[in-house]
Amino acid sequence: MLTREDNETLTRIGPGTPMGELMRRFWMPFLLREELPHPDCPPLRVTLLGEQYVAFRDSAGRVGLLDRFCPHRRADLYFARNEECGLRCVYHGWKFDVDGNVLDMPAEPPDTPLKREVKACAYPTFEAGGIVWAYLGDPAQKPPRPPELEWTLVPDSHSFVTKRLQESNYAQAVEGGIDSSHVSILHSRLDPAKAGQPFRQRQISINQKVPYLASDTSPKFFVRDTDYGMVIGARRNAGDDAYYWRITQFLMPFYTMIARTIEDGPILGHAWTPIDDHHTWTFTMTWNPLRPLAEHERDPSVAVHAPVADDGSFAPLLNKRNGYGLDREIQRLNSSTGIEGIGMQDAAIQESMGPIVDRSKETLASSDAAIVAYRRLMLKKARELREGKPPQAPAHPEWYRVRSAGIVLKKGIDFQQGAAHRLALT
Amino acid sequence: MLTREDNETLTRIGPGTPMGELMRRFWMPFLLREELPHPDCPPLRVTLLGEQYVAFRDSAGRVGLLDRFCPHRRADLYFARNEECGLRCVYHGWKFDVDGNVLDMPAEPPDTPLKREVKACAYPTFEAGGIVWAYLGDPAQKPPRPPELEWTLVPDSHSFVTKRLQESNYAQAVEGGIDSSHVSILHSRLDPAKAGQPFRQRQISINQKVPYLASDTSPKFFVRDTDYGMVIGARRNAGDDAYYWRITQFLMPFYTMIARTIEDGPILGHAWTPIDDHHTWTFTMTWNPLRPLAEHERDPSVAVHAPVADDGSFAPLLNKRNGYGLDREIQRLNSSTGIEGIGMQDAAIQESMGPIVDRSKETLASSDAAIVAYRRLMLKKARELREGKPPQAPAHPEWYRVRSAGIVLKKGIDFQQGAAHRLALT
Amino acid sequence: MLTREDNETLTRIGPGTPMGELMRRFWMPFLLREELPHPDCPPLRVTLLGEQYVAFRDSAGRVGLLDRFCPHRRADLYFARNEECGLRCVYHGWKFDVDGNVLDMPAEPPDTPLKREVKACAYPTFEAGGIVWAYLGDPAQKPPRPPELEWTLVPDSHSFVTKRLQESNYAQAVEGGIDSSHVSILHSRLDPAKAGQPFRQRQISINQKVPYLASDTSPKFFVRDTDYGMVIGARRNAGDDAYYWRITQFLMPFYTMIARTIEDGPILGHAWTPIDDHHTWTFTMTWNPLRPLAEHERDPSVAVHAPVADDGSFAPLLNKRNGYGLDREIQRLNSSTGIEGIGMQDAAIQESMGPIVDRSKETLASSDAAIVAYRRLMLKKARELREGKPPQAPAHPEWYRVRSAGIVLKKGIDFQQGAAHRLALT
Repeated sequence: MLTREDNETLTRIGPGTPMGELMRRFWMPFLLREELPHPDCPPLRVTLLGEQYVAFRDSAGRVGLLDRFCPHRRADLYFARNEECGLRCVYHGWKFDVDGNVLDMPAEPPDTPLKREVKACAYPTFEAGGIVWAYLGDPAQKPPRPPELEWTLVPDSHSFVTKRLQESNYAQAVEGGIDSSHVSILHSRLDPAKAGQPFRQRQISINQKVPYLASDTSPKFFVRDTDYGMVIGARRNAGDDAYYWRITQFLMPFYTMIARTIEDGPILGHAWTPIDDHHTWTFTMTWNPLRPLAEHERDPSVAVHAPVADDGSFAPLLNKRNGYGLDREIQRLNSSTGIEGIGMQDAAIQESMGPIVDRSKETLASSDAAIVAYRRLMLKKARELREGKPPQAPAHPEWYRVRSAGIVLKKGIDFQQGAAHRLALT
Repeated sequence: MLTREDNETLTRIGPGTPMGELMRRFWMPFLLREELPHPDCPPLRVTLLGEQYVAFRDSAGRVGLLDRFCPHRRADLYFARNEECGLRCVYHGWKFDVDGNVLDMPAEPPDTPLKREVKACAYPTFEAGGIVWAYLGDPAQKPPRPPELEWTLVPDSHSFVTKRLQESNYAQAVEGGIDSSHVSILHSRLDPAKAGQPFRQRQISINQKVPYLASDTSPKFFVRDTDYGMVIGARRNAGDDAYYWRITQFLMPFYTMIARTIEDGPILGHAWTPIDDHHTWTFTMTWNPLRPLAEHERDPSVAVHAPVADDGSFAPLLNKRNGYGLDREIQRLNSSTGIEGIGMQDAAIQESMGPIVDRSKETLASSDAAIVAYRRLMLKKARELREGKPPQAPAHPEWYRVRSAGIVLKKGIDFQQGAAHRLALT
Repeated sequence: MLTREDNETLTRIGPGTPMGELMRRFWMPFLLREELPHPDCPPLRVTLLGEQYVAFRDSAGRVGLLDRFCPHRRADLYFARNEECGLRCVYHGWKFDVDGNVLDMPAEPPDTPLKREVKACAYPTFEAGGIVWAYLGDPAQKPPRPPELEWTLVPDSHSFVTKRLQESNYAQAVEGGIDSSHVSILHSRLDPAKAGQPFRQRQISINQKVPYLASDTSPKFFVRDTDYGMVIGARRNAGDDAYYWRITQFLMPFYTMIARTIEDGPILGHAWTPIDDHHTWTFTMTWNPLRPLAEHERDPSVAVHAPVADDGSFAPLLNKRNGYGLDREIQRLNSSTGIEGIGMQDAAIQESMGPIVDRSKETLASSDAAIVAYRRLMLKKARELREGKPPQAPAHPEWYRVRSAGIVLKKGIDFQQGAAHRLALT
């Protein structure tokens, strides 16, 4: 559990908050590239870290990110006209380029000094990995480029990225992402043929290649701090003389990795970008550094992806308003939850805690070792920044070149050493 | 009128409030038995006195009521699996019985001391009268059983119980329930044949057997405190030498009775259970101690019952979002309100005052004598509890064995004495 | 820009606020006459200046405006029965006339002194110009009648009045109404044949008779205080030796005029009545003092009128929930906004700033000269009232007998003098 005060510090990301200031030191993914599909396409309303922006792609294809409201009389620039390398507010025609410079002020005299004096607040953007990234912090501290997460480095053909709206604070989503323990329960399938028997005898591992997820439901956690965040080894029994290690990373400020189950198979990961204190963009990535993804690997209803509305809201089709499609008969016969899809099982549980879970009322257990370490790390980084010691990771995109792994190792072998060939980018 | 402070005391029932603490000394009806129809049926979300719970019926048929959120990481236990005599949180598999004991912790080592140390907050329940009751207070003060209201004592065949959501504070609902005066106005039917004549000459009594309700619209009130609450005699003229007495009870903390109009006919009553400060469960009971109810007496659209949605919300089909179906032409020709059904006429008016009526702006009159007495009684009981003097009624379920009555008595006869044979359970 | 404090003063109109007190010195339009179409028609819920009322037309045709909740037990008088020259609360039958006097108290003894002692809070109303007006202030300060705006003086046949709900504070609506500069941009049509060319070369004036609106987009403002408020001259170039003057008025507390473009054509104006801090009734008037309006001049989809829902809400069919019907392709080819209708273009932009625009973050320019003067005037009047110096205009309805005009004048001619024959009522 956390004190109420620490819980506030961990979860609040608005301007001026300790965690909000920490987040603003990092590039952050916020749009799928396809949301701004072509030059001069319609602008988009964007909320990030509790503040409102408008994004647009100009005639030259550059992505602009401006404060949402026109600096003149505060009309919403969403209604603006995206034209000839700038966004024109339609109230009085002030026009801005992607850097916030004024290009035109038709309602003012031609020689007005305002054209030079006024600037719209503009923020740098970057495109990588099929995603548009933003940097919202102090320009003087801007990192050179987004982190070199592997899915940003592979060709488009090798990766599949989806986005969905999560109706909870980002931190309880991250905590789900690093929680190697819940995999054995929340995502359990049940053997319908054993319907009369106790739950634990009916569990079938989520992944048939990793029976240990069902056979050992109480992994022992080994968590180590790293320069990018932390690496988590979740150890399960795998016969008399071996362990199955599920090795995943938390990468500051909000990236998580899912253990790769097959050595050359696809890898999965998440970014949990805070929209505001109560909402999160869940980016889900599938990639394979070795080969293009197959068609069935690009299906938004498989793995931890989830189908969303196509109205620009990215709201999952299953959501709290329709009870996530929970089917009590399927829950009785076929799965722990009765909810379809791993991603929506996670979302349902994470959102069920309320917009911000009250961590002062928790009872933490051994399964929560990684969660405890994550909170301690982020609270420490936020405190250090306040004390004048900024995080180092934003300036080192190369630190993010890591992979997750699931691996069976003989007892006695250190998991990072034994899996070293699996954890590094080749 | 009340001071704002007294109004707050009367109406706020959350944890730690004076009235909330008083309520927590009583067993409270909160579910229809059929909402948990069979062992291991789906759990239900419950809000009572402003706090959130989950209710379930275990494999042995016992009803459990637990705090809504898992003591581990605060997942909503509504999503839990109801299985083998316990509710299993699907996040990490912690499983609880109806008493809150831990039955399983699959994500922890087998020998974890947490199994003994952790308990879910669990609350006692009781089934009687087709209803599930809860006791939310100090376990040491738990009354032996719910009050022996007659409808909890008769066979199922002799009673009919419905439930509906009321979108107002409980107290203004109770005040409607003890208000013998509004019956002559709010529930008036009008003679359409006299459409051109003044309202008061067109009134027809709601009950043809009791013409006095229309012929005398200003009853004189006689209110007497009793051990269970109070008894109210509303006296109307009934010819030269007699009075018609409408004798109803208020029973602590929120039960009201409707005057029985025929000596051997059905009796009606209400329980007004506070969901939170702004919402109330209106339980409506029809029963006849002498015989099974006829089919037409089990119709949810008759008497003070009201049809509700069958989606588990118990929201009335007529509600503030559709204006309670108010038909101005029917109001002009056939009834005071133009709203169909006595129950919905009450609900419309009670909800129309807002979620919590501002009693500091009232102008009380002689018709409000029972309301004044009710407020004084409940404020006194709440104050006494705060001063260390708890209410006696919870420990005396037998005090609740009373009936209402409508009766014509000669002038000069005391109403409680003259109606004694009608007011006691036989 | 304004300080946050001045912005609060300008925009908040609830009871006790400086601007709310100023507003309460004026008669205010609030209903279309047809909303209370005949004697004893259904009562209406009304919110004005942040307070709740009920309006009704009694058997004699008089309009009553009472506090929304019955003085007895606070039932909503919307549910009351409108009958025989009074409104009867259906809870206990208390009945009030348009002046708030008690006509009947059926649940009280016949000789109750309450009939004399109790009064419902009642407010004077007035019908003029197809509109019902209310006076909500101190009875001792009541002005003799509403302002003599020309559209209240012409025959019904000569005017067309519509009403729509605006989801913003009144002040940003007024500011749109006096903003002669945005006309050149927000309401611009674009030449689709020049689709490849820059915006400014494609602009077509909203009014073909006034090409200057497109040819000169940076008018110079001349603002003069008057006894009723202020007159605004917006000067555009009209050839070598002439100016086109767009002369409009702001009339306290919230009336604006649109420049008449043809000397004998219809005139347009607005009243922006504050419902509460976040909502406004936009009344739009078209009138011609010389002749009855033609059928096509009574079309709610032309000029600055806008079609609204016919459910009594007066919500525009295009609104923020459907994005005002913004069509990006039409925006690209045919108009600045891609939104249909001048009125909805205004509404979209005014509402887009949020319920109350944050004026502390503006960058005012020369196009905002009238807006600056409006704010200064209203803040001054509110401050003076607080200092014991009430506004004079309410007592002088005749001061409001002015017209707007659009006129070409030779350079060197004062706009008020040169247009004097156009600005006065004849």
